[in-house]
Amino acid sequence: MQCRTTLKRLPKRGTYDRAAIHRILDEALVCHVGFAGADGAPVVIPTAYGRDGDTLLLHGSAAGRMLQTVGGGVDVCVTVTLIDGLVLARSAFHHSINYRSVVIFGRARVVESVDGKRQALRAITEHIVPGRWPHVREPYEKELKGTLVLALSLDEASVKTRSGPPLDDEEDYALAVWAGELPLRVVPQAPVDDTRLVAGVEAPPYVRAYRRPRANG
Amino acid sequence: MQCRTTLKRLPKRGTYDRAAIHRILDEALVCHVGFAGADGAPVVIPTAYGRDGDTLLLHGSAAGRMLQTVGGGVDVCVTVTLIDGLVLARSAFHHSINYRSVVIFGRARVVESVDGKRQALRAITEHIVPGRWPHVREPYEKELKGTLVLALSLDEASVKTRSGPPLDDEEDYALAVWAGELPLRVVPQAPVDDTRLVAGVEAPPYVRAYRRPRANG
Repeated sequence: MQCRTTLKRLPKRGTYDRAAIHRILDEALVCHVGFAGADGAPVVIPTAYGRDGDTLLLHGSAAGRMLQTVGGGVDVCVTVTLIDGLVLARSAFHHSINYRSVVIFGRARVVESVDGKRQALRAITEHIVPGRWPHVREPYEKELKGTLVLALSLDEASVKTRSGPPLDDEEDYALAVWAGELPLRVVPQAPVDDTRLVAGVEAPPYVRAYRRPRANG
Repeated sequence: MQCRTTLKRLPKRGTYDRAAIHRILDEALVCHVGFAGADGAPVVIPTAYGRDGDTLLLHGSAAGRMLQTVGGGVDVCVTVTLIDGLVLARSAFHHSINYRSVVIFGRARVVESVDGKRQALRAITEHIVPGRWPHVREPYEKELKGTLVLALSLDEASVKTRSGPPLDDEEDYALAVWAGELPLRVVPQAPVDDTRLVAGVEAPPYVRAYRRPRANG
């Protein structure tokens, strides 16, 4: 994945890149959060997230070690990766993966207010399942108080992607070896009802027709 | 993703966990490599990988900054994550994601020999597309010389997973809100022929019937 990529380090508020960053963040489901652990060695943890404008939002138990460390004002790197397909070349050497990724550097800010936490939880829930928030029981204040919410600016975000066919050495194009792309897609399967559903409750349209990216996104 | 997870820190050579680690590593396509960058701040980069027994293999251009840094004997954390589905609870607070992840700590070793590099490239190619290696043009020695290959032991690997239905607060089970799981699967689409294929060459069975995890794995 490291060959033939395009690195677009953001010029301040570059509109095109900002839109590309938003699209990738809105399509992916989890991010990988990197920070220095207690012994100084790097730690990389997957977690859910949401986006509110140009801010990435993370949440977890207020007792959790990961978010406590990251919320302590340390340098953090958050990476989000979408895999679009496999790239099969005629030579072993030129095999690759088509992907889109966003890398965000910065320091996270702790969201202190109960309203700010509620808004973050809404952004994270709606990020995972758009349309879900109006249908669920909203968080109690005690739940929000027990939740640590972190906000990370997208100011230091960059996009890296690979797309398109394999690029073989010129002489290898004469080989009778199949080459091309194998696109991959994340596809929802049939929803599984919880065994304790109230009688007659059925999966709503935003679950039955779930897709990433969203139809309108 | 941070609630209700099971952390299984490996007892030395614990067989069960070792098999679970292998299964997750063999199913996923990319890992996220975390290390301290030039300025000491954490960096998290997605990249392809392979597995040879209890060793994770990474590769890239010998001129590439990322692998050069990681190959310099610094502490590294490599994380691999599979997303199995969305967990929709009756309350916003208990939404979650079903996943399986492996976190590996350690220091990577540079693979110096040309034979070792060839074997690593084979493991990485076969990891991405099982069955591919015998059909492609093998690496030239000059390609291997220009490739940096790193090996990371799985000795310090641990598994973290979430599976199963949502867990709501007892009083919320009375709510007429749909709850359950929405399984997600990575599904290959129709292969796209490279525009310069030799006439008559068709996508082989291991491409047309591609799936993760492998049918026999």
